[in-house]
Amino acid sequence: MQQFTTQQVNTLFKLAHELRINPQGDLLKGKILSTIFYEPSTRTQSSFTSAVQRLGGTVIPLNQITSSVVKGESLEDTVRTMECYSDVIVLRHPEKGSVKAASSFLRKPLINAGDGIGEHPTQALLDVFTIREELGTVNGLHITLVGDLKHGRTVHSLSQLLQHYDVTLHFVSPASLAMPAELLGKLKTKYSVHENLDDVLKVTDVLYVTRIQKERFESIQAYEAVKGSYIITPQLMTNAKSRMIVMHPLPRVDEISPELDTDSRAAYFRQMEYGVFVRMALILQVLDVNLSSLEYLTN
Amino acid sequence: MQQFTTQQVNTLFKLAHELRINPQGDLLKGKILSTIFYEPSTRTQSSFTSAVQRLGGTVIPLNQITSSVVKGESLEDTVRTMECYSDVIVLRHPEKGSVKAASSFLRKPLINAGDGIGEHPTQALLDVFTIREELGTVNGLHITLVGDLKHGRTVHSLSQLLQHYDVTLHFVSPASLAMPAELLGKLKTKYSVHENLDDVLKVTDVLYVTRIQKERFESIQAYEAVKGSYIITPQLMTNAKSRMIVMHPLPRVDEISPELDTDSRAAYFRQMEYGVFVRMALILQVLDVNLSSLEYLTN
Amino acid sequence: MQQFTTQQVNTLFKLAHELRINPQGDLLKGKILSTIFYEPSTRTQSSFTSAVQRLGGTVIPLNQITSSVVKGESLEDTVRTMECYSDVIVLRHPEKGSVKAASSFLRKPLINAGDGIGEHPTQALLDVFTIREELGTVNGLHITLVGDLKHGRTVHSLSQLLQHYDVTLHFVSPASLAMPAELLGKLKTKYSVHENLDDVLKVTDVLYVTRIQKERFESIQAYEAVKGSYIITPQLMTNAKSRMIVMHPLPRVDEISPELDTDSRAAYFRQMEYGVFVRMALILQVLDVNLSSLEYLTN
Repeated sequence: MQQFTTQQVNTLFKLAHELRINPQGDLLKGKILSTIFYEPSTRTQSSFTSAVQRLGGTVIPLNQITSSVVKGESLEDTVRTMECYSDVIVLRHPEKGSVKAASSFLRKPLINAGDGIGEHPTQALLDVFTIREELGTVNGLHITLVGDLKHGRTVHSLSQLLQHYDVTLHFVSPASLAMPAELLGKLKTKYSVHENLDDVLKVTDVLYVTRIQKERFESIQAYEAVKGSYIITPQLMTNAKSRMIVMHPLPRVDEISPELDTDSRAAYFRQMEYGVFVRMALILQVLDVNLSSLEYLTN
Repeated sequence: MQQFTTQQVNTLFKLAHELRINPQGDLLKGKILSTIFYEPSTRTQSSFTSAVQRLGGTVIPLNQITSSVVKGESLEDTVRTMECYSDVIVLRHPEKGSVKAASSFLRKPLINAGDGIGEHPTQALLDVFTIREELGTVNGLHITLVGDLKHGRTVHSLSQLLQHYDVTLHFVSPASLAMPAELLGKLKTKYSVHENLDDVLKVTDVLYVTRIQKERFESIQAYEAVKGSYIITPQLMTNAKSRMIVMHPLPRVDEISPELDTDSRAAYFRQMEYGVFVRMALILQVLDVNLSSLEYLTN
Repeated sequence: MQQFTTQQVNTLFKLAHELRINPQGDLLKGKILSTIFYEPSTRTQSSFTSAVQRLGGTVIPLNQITSSVVKGESLEDTVRTMECYSDVIVLRHPEKGSVKAASSFLRKPLINAGDGIGEHPTQALLDVFTIREELGTVNGLHITLVGDLKHGRTVHSLSQLLQHYDVTLHFVSPASLAMPAELLGKLKTKYSVHENLDDVLKVTDVLYVTRIQKERFESIQAYEAVKGSYIITPQLMTNAKSRMIVMHPLPRVDEISPELDTDSRAAYFRQMEYGVFVRMALILQVLDVNLSSLEYLTN
């Protein structure tokens, strides 16, 4: 996430927006992307696959189960192997720092699709792009992050990326799952910390809800105790602005009631569609594809 | 299966026939189909994949193992997710009614590729298309269904689809695996029920053989008792017409002897090829693809 | 491996070389390759996939886990099924002879991607092609094969393929893992047998290193005893020629030290890239694709 300057983020979003407005079927013709997933992820892998295919490229999927890892191969060798077969690689790996380490062996671009408790930068990019496309701008907004803020790599990456903008952040969680002090210390934007969503719901322009990840708890009891604390329902949303959006990285379990799905403020499925455009733009950039056919560059 | 009118079935088959005669490489260029399979199925998934690729489109496969289901996501959310990444979805799910239920949340077309003991409509469509292409017509034929008629969703869907035609059906099975009375009650065509294939083999134009599915039996003993009852061999086939066909949805275990494979009446492998054309036609229809380039529409 | 004449091998390599120099994006447009892998293989499956996609074709992957095999289907029927959906099939199966047996049922081409302790012909072809591209010729070279020469199907196929050339082979292994006498008896080229790599390293033009496959040993003790016997390090390589290459079929465990990777003689990752071109050429040949657009044929 720290690789990106404000200008790079803006350029990426302009391109993603352009691709959304003007579909381009052949920009990746002849290009191959490998997806190497050591952990399953429906959404991220399918989203990258869709992005490449929409632009005329193809994908070689490598899932853990079919990997040479069972024969004792190192991550570095696996990644270098796929480099021989493709033009750009997307890697998800459960260990923090593994993606960066692997990239040092490669001549071709490697995109981080999540490295354990580390980062998930394309998720953060698509999150901010969603805000930009839905509300027209990011600056000036009150953005509320709710749920498990302690373990959630998504909210960590997102709050970091939002430092490129003039926003106010509100962190809402049980005390035991609060945003780590270390991360709060790095924020340059205004922010506030709450245990109760009611404190800030009324001023919220973006309500970013995250899952309480059962598997990260130490006991069933600890999980059950907070599980239902922050469930977004239509009733609760009567206190929110009429022009605002509810986001979620998905999958959700019960943090957002399905009854909210038909509310026009529920942006979480549209959010996934925006993700495809952001990933298209990123792939085009890292492959240095000639974009002269795109109108916005000739304007 | 009940969604289809006789005319819709005819239009579909005309299109499938046209695609078989005149290959079309680009009709699905730029289109993406997602295949969501909660149960494995070599044949159905590969057949849909082939259909899309033959027409220039691409596929995003989602198998159970890589699904977010492990994180507790609902079927509805999984399907809506894939909708964001593709233009049309093919879904197989072990629960009856699940496909229909999932479709109510979608804006894009969803094709049922089997819902447990429910239906498997594209199988029935390809079965009838096979008869049409192999024998020139469906009307007037004697069609014999043999095997496990109680549990077989394939024969249930097929006999239902055959109600659009003027045919005579013969149901051959052990009494314990007979066609459910409820389904027989809905038939408008002539039909007869038998325990012995010899009763009707001589008049049969289409012999539709189904597998006795081991996993649906209550005990090994019950399975062993009927396992070998209806094995189609070259010797048995000396009593059949010279112009008729033997069909099977496959996979087979031992219901049809491999020695029959070289008999020109053995149509079960050709049947799989016809399946690709039927699925091509169906996808083109549900996506409302402009078919003006196809000759048959300009005739 | 015995299907190939010297001339066929040469023609294949000329085509592979041409494809390497002049990328061809559309030669396989509209063609579908099925990959049927009863054993996982990152490299081989991805390499074939890359080869097809680079030439504009598409792939239907069939992995063991999604196969009808769980329903008791025979290999023959599975292969014939995939034949209905594609134009050419690539098959890996754990049983020796299975690929040849399966081919007898097919009308379309079947490529052997490894049949247990049998053969792995495309690996041998890409190995020899690597030597040709890296060193300009194969004739006259000293080629040293080191590691587990008893169980390694790779070295068996390779030494067989090298019989088309005028080379000197050196076999280096512990006595317990030596090249089978039966295979040595078939060699027409000069060869020598050693336990110590030092005996031949100085004259070696090609050092072909293979993995000591843990799973083929009878006990952990037997494995541990020889495990580290033949580890290729930068220090050891100071005794080798400056113009020579080190090859490995990969994956490696610890037979080649990662410190060697930056040595220009380390050809094992380039070897994988050559593999894509060899597989491209082979697929074009078995599909009898019109190659008149390729320059080398008009020369």
